[in-house]
Amino acid sequence: MTIIVHHLENSRSQRVLWLLEELELPYEVRRYERNKATMLAPPELRRVHPLGKSPVIEREGRVVAETGAIVEYLVEFADGCLGAPPHREDALRYRHFLHYAEGSLMPPLYAKLVLGRVPLLGKTAQKKFQPMIDVHLDYVEAELAGRPWFAGKEFTAADVMMSFPLEAAAARAAATEGRPHIAAWLARIHARPAYQAALEKGGPYAYA
Amino acid sequence: MTIIVHHLENSRSQRVLWLLEELELPYEVRRYERNKATMLAPPELRRVHPLGKSPVIEREGRVVAETGAIVEYLVEFADGCLGAPPHREDALRYRHFLHYAEGSLMPPLYAKLVLGRVPLLGKTAQKKFQPMIDVHLDYVEAELAGRPWFAGKEFTAADVMMSFPLEAAAARAAATEGRPHIAAWLARIHARPAYQAALEKGGPYAYA
Repeated sequence: MTIIVHHLENSRSQRVLWLLEELELPYEVRRYERNKATMLAPPELRRVHPLGKSPVIEREGRVVAETGAIVEYLVEFADGCLGAPPHREDALRYRHFLHYAEGSLMPPLYAKLVLGRVPLLGKTAQKKFQPMIDVHLDYVEAELAGRPWFAGKEFTAADVMMSFPLEAAAARAAATEGRPHIAAWLARIHARPAYQAALEKGGPYAYA
Repeated sequence: MTIIVHHLENSRSQRVLWLLEELELPYEVRRYERNKATMLAPPELRRVHPLGKSPVIEREGRVVAETGAIVEYLVEFADGCLGAPPHREDALRYRHFLHYAEGSLMPPLYAKLVLGRVPLLGKTAQKKFQPMIDVHLDYVEAELAGRPWFAGKEFTAADVMMSFPLEAAAARAAATEGRPHIAAWLARIHARPAYQAALEKGGPYAYA
């Protein structure tokens, strides 16, 4: 049974396509376009999952939502490939970044991105979040100074999870200015053949 | 070796104390107070972890941050107690809500909470987030209509993860208005002896 990915253009679901390419799993993409005025997901996505958001995957009639849970589901399906590394410290870092990407790094970025769409007052309100984002980006920069990938010496699904927040932060929150390790990590992920293959499958993606 | 919990009052780290009480693990609390003017965590927390945030736990000299990762660490330490249930559907829901709590439900709430501290313009900017929060709360209400706990018939660590966003949403985003299942779930968690014991250990917590 093929995995179906309900994919919203220019969104965090690009990561799911990338992970599927890295794992060499067969999948089928159903693309959704954002509403041009509101930039929100179209109502059709609500027929797939009540939250009406992307990514959502389907396999054997089962629907799985929430990026972190999807990533864990796919890694499990691929017999642990790109999952927690054997070394204990690497495994702890893997789990940390799997949660950190959306649990801590993304919220202030998300607030900044959403407020960027509010005319007039949005720009001022956005300023509240940049210092918080910078604390995170400085932390991430220091982490990447010590090793090539988030869990350790090997590329894992934690890197896939971290891609969207860091790509969004590079585009909208000056993540790479004065942070060479983040810039180098972004260049490394973008150079991966699986990343490029996923881009072709996913259509418009403004952050690569 | 006892687990040390670096706990910030009135914060998401209350959950970690609660989980430790549920698991009946020995622990020691180091309490930190928020800055009265900014409501931010004090700089001392930066000596524990570079992000300067709470919760952070320490055991045998190892520091673990990020609530979702801490919860998984503690469940693993307790031999899987309150972790993924044996039934496949329950296990998938467990994993879903473990990520959903901070990955999707919390971000719009977080934006609303932070903007609530910005004079004048904050209140107007907050309005942008309430409809997004409502979509989530309606989804959560529907989920809780079908079963007593987030993963299924049994209480799990996914309920612990979901507590802070739902408590914060009840206090600041009218989560329980017209949503009887969320209200009943909150009453159920607050009635648990372990929850009450954790409250006594943690000090000020405005959301219980």
